Amino acid sequence: MGSIDLNCDMGESFGSWSMGPDAELMRYVSSVNIACGFHAGDAGTMRTTVELAVANRVAIGAHPGYPDLQGFGRRNMSMAPQELHDAVLYQISALKGICEAYGGRLNHVKPHGAMYNQAAANREMSQAIAEAVLRADPSLIVYGLSGSALIEEADRAGLRSASEAFADRTYRNDGSLTPRSEPDALVADVAAAAAQAVSLARSGTVLTIDGAAISVKADTICIHGDGANALEFAAAISAAFAENGIDIRSIP
Amino acid sequence: MGSIDLNCDMGESFGSWSMGPDAELMRYVSSVNIACGFHAGDAGTMRTTVELAVANRVAIGAHPGYPDLQGFGRRNMSMAPQELHDAVLYQISALKGICEAYGGRLNHVKPHGAMYNQAAANREMSQAIAEAVLRADPSLIVYGLSGSALIEEADRAGLRSASEAFADRTYRNDGSLTPRSEPDALVADVAAAAAQAVSLARSGTVLTIDGAAISVKADTICIHGDGANALEFAAAISAAFAENGIDIRSIP
Amino acid sequence: MGSIDLNCDMGESFGSWSMGPDAELMRYVSSVNIACGFHAGDAGTMRTTVELAVANRVAIGAHPGYPDLQGFGRRNMSMAPQELHDAVLYQISALKGICEAYGGRLNHVKPHGAMYNQAAANREMSQAIAEAVLRADPSLIVYGLSGSALIEEADRAGLRSASEAFADRTYRNDGSLTPRSEPDALVADVAAAAAQAVSLARSGTVLTIDGAAISVKADTICIHGDGANALEFAAAISAAFAENGIDIRSIP
Amino acid sequence: MGSIDLNCDMGESFGSWSMGPDAELMRYVSSVNIACGFHAGDAGTMRTTVELAVANRVAIGAHPGYPDLQGFGRRNMSMAPQELHDAVLYQISALKGICEAYGGRLNHVKPHGAMYNQAAANREMSQAIAEAVLRADPSLIVYGLSGSALIEEADRAGLRSASEAFADRTYRNDGSLTPRSEPDALVADVAAAAAQAVSLARSGTVLTIDGAAISVKADTICIHGDGANALEFAAAISAAFAENGIDIRSIP
Repeated sequence: MGSIDLNCDMGESFGSWSMGPDAELMRYVSSVNIACGFHAGDAGTMRTTVELAVANRVAIGAHPGYPDLQGFGRRNMSMAPQELHDAVLYQISALKGICEAYGGRLNHVKPHGAMYNQAAANREMSQAIAEAVLRADPSLIVYGLSGSALIEEADRAGLRSASEAFADRTYRNDGSLTPRSEPDALVADVAAAAAQAVSLARSGTVLTIDGAAISVKADTICIHGDGANALEFAAAISAAFAENGIDIRSIP
Repeated sequence: MGSIDLNCDMGESFGSWSMGPDAELMRYVSSVNIACGFHAGDAGTMRTTVELAVANRVAIGAHPGYPDLQGFGRRNMSMAPQELHDAVLYQISALKGICEAYGGRLNHVKPHGAMYNQAAANREMSQAIAEAVLRADPSLIVYGLSGSALIEEADRAGLRSASEAFADRTYRNDGSLTPRSEPDALVADVAAAAAQAVSLARSGTVLTIDGAAISVKADTICIHGDGANALEFAAAISAAFAENGIDIRSIP
Repeated sequence: MGSIDLNCDMGESFGSWSMGPDAELMRYVSSVNIACGFHAGDAGTMRTTVELAVANRVAIGAHPGYPDLQGFGRRNMSMAPQELHDAVLYQISALKGICEAYGGRLNHVKPHGAMYNQAAANREMSQAIAEAVLRADPSLIVYGLSGSALIEEADRAGLRSASEAFADRTYRNDGSLTPRSEPDALVADVAAAAAQAVSLARSGTVLTIDGAAISVKADTICIHGDGANALEFAAAISAAFAENGIDIRSIP
Repeated sequence: MGSIDLNCDMGESFGSWSMGPDAELMRYVSSVNIACGFHAGDAGTMRTTVELAVANRVAIGAHPGYPDLQGFGRRNMSMAPQELHDAVLYQISALKGICEAYGGRLNHVKPHGAMYNQAAANREMSQAIAEAVLRADPSLIVYGLSGSALIEEADRAGLRSASEAFADRTYRNDGSLTPRSEPDALVADVAAAAAQAVSLARSGTVLTIDGAAISVKADTICIHGDGANALEFAAAISAAFAENGIDIRSIP
């Protein structure tokens, strides 16, 4: 019946502060995106998360973010394209080296938070990121918002890309995500999120908040690891995939 | 008659703050040690310094330091061996990736400042650093203080090592450097520094502050790039080597 | 029957990372020590913790630490006395201003973690800290380890001091705390910790790990807010004080 | 013949990196804006700059910026109003405390770089900053771009404000500054900058790049301390004021 990649952001602890039930979540997903020290994830957290990913045989991605620990990389910043390129190359390189040092292999790159959102709508930023990935390793896959400039620029650069859709975010008729500032941005119901995930995986369609069925290319589905009931969502989505004969499998 | 490596710390600017005449100094040395973002050197500085090194065909080393921008990595810190290992692996990886992305190849690793000094006398720290280098790339050369624990542990780990001596620091009878806290720690005279460099390169001997001639293994000689007259020292040492038929050449 | 101050470190969250059940713990203590942004506690956390303290009418102290977010201020660092003075004055000032802006008044200063421990045994550091407090506000009380150099130097500087003892740490015959690196460093049993707190408050005596009864001056007793069962300890100690007629009251 | 305030940003060194000839520039100005540790200026730099300002009897202002050392606070960031308020209050408080500890008195607050520019056009941000100033000390003067939202919101909050104009930036017909991205943004000629300063001080008028004479309220004129010939500009402007009988005097 086909397969889909299920990815989750991990390694978002920092020093004495921990975040997310990484070890438990790791069992449900096929890919993890590991923070690289700028918005979260110190060097030790990166190494232990890589070791966990290697032990769980999940695909490992770099999750570069803005240099903003206090804002967790969620605040928009205006970095010049060259600055962005350099910051992304640095972060990918750091994780790639740790990965290879501990028996893993870097598979993909997914920008984090505000960088992900700003790049989705910004061609110059997307080019700067794509060039950083290309120089770091042309075999890396770029994860980006389905339909975004980042996907287009990754493709144009000759990189492989993976269009990302969300199980627990609502969509609008134009295919964009409902902004988090609006009340109905999140799919709060576990069963509804699982159903949305299955629909995305099986047919690349999703029901918008206005009830329209739209197409959303979905090579990979993101689940959030930092929510209060992240494990419940992960288990439900995983079970729904199993029931529907959809394998959870990383992008080869 | 013969050759020696001449190395210099570089890439120590950060953001809007610049330090050191890197482009000019690059002409005199065979190896550079590039700061990796923890004590100095943001991602952009690292990339431009790598590009400069590649253009000048000098060997490139990672120069990892303590996470202490404000103290420039010169304040002792008690990092646990595992923390140190992780921090060093992260920094080496970041620079290695940037290096390879811009047509270079990482050649060596030289810890910076307080990390260099503390590791020189601490076996556990030296093991943690050596293991980080080994995991990052077993072909990397470890630069350490001549006669130090770091050299011993690098050798024991099966890594290549390069014993470092100083042209502009004075030595004591036991082979240790005169601490910077003492008035006669520095060789302030350019000609004297050049003569010390030649003596180290030619015969591995140096005159101590007490006038004794002692042996100091010198595979590489460090010149400081941040002093007021760094270029003058570099030019004088370089000229003295030429006069004495000593090639300035990186370690193969 | 007398009274004692009960203090707890708080405001140790940072950005998206939270730490400690501050709101619940606030009900049991008479004084809080609020992190000032160097080892934990961003500006927003500081303000909300001050507001919480003002609402709970507990005394507010600054809790300055080393500039080491990743190590949570628990790693020894060798800051020069002048650097230490400046860093402590900066942190006290930041919290004092926030405090006064939100209806509070700064009452005391207690160094954090490695700074607390290093200063306890180091006269120069203690002088640098005492001078920072004196310049910030000579009416502030210095909290320090009972019997430490910090208490002596605060007294010598003409500041008020508060000798701190611990309910949940074991003591050695010389009056020092058993180092955390040893297995019996902590009083793991809630009832034993409560009994130790009462003994310290009532008679200034404590039983060492060797069973000797020694004197420990205790103006204030510290409970830890970051342990797994911090609330249980706080409740038990608070109840034991009530049973023994000891008021929990901040130092006037 | 009247007087005007002449202000300059200072204390922008950080750790081992120095910036600006502060001691020399201090002789020409009546007010300095001291960086507070977020975009530049560590605790030690703040203290020494305060001491210098006290010795030179110039008015001292806090110069809060975004938490972005690498970008020197010049990159736009989207901080929520509450976050901005907290970050500004923290920075003002830190400098105010250091100031009072070393014999000074905080006189004003001028946001730095991207925060200054973003607040100029953003009412919510301006309110957040004004409220931070008000809570820190209602006697503080808010320095902001002449005609900006920050000036309006400071006035509305009941604070005193100082409208700032520039000697070395060109103006457009609508009274706005020519953006730095355009080639004619700067007044490169020293004599022209001095003439513009005198015109602003004497009549509150300036010639735009299109040759129109427009009104620009100028309570204070900013000179830049980080340019290559900052001292030359400062000396020329100072001399021009003297020739025209305009006193350089801080706002009372």
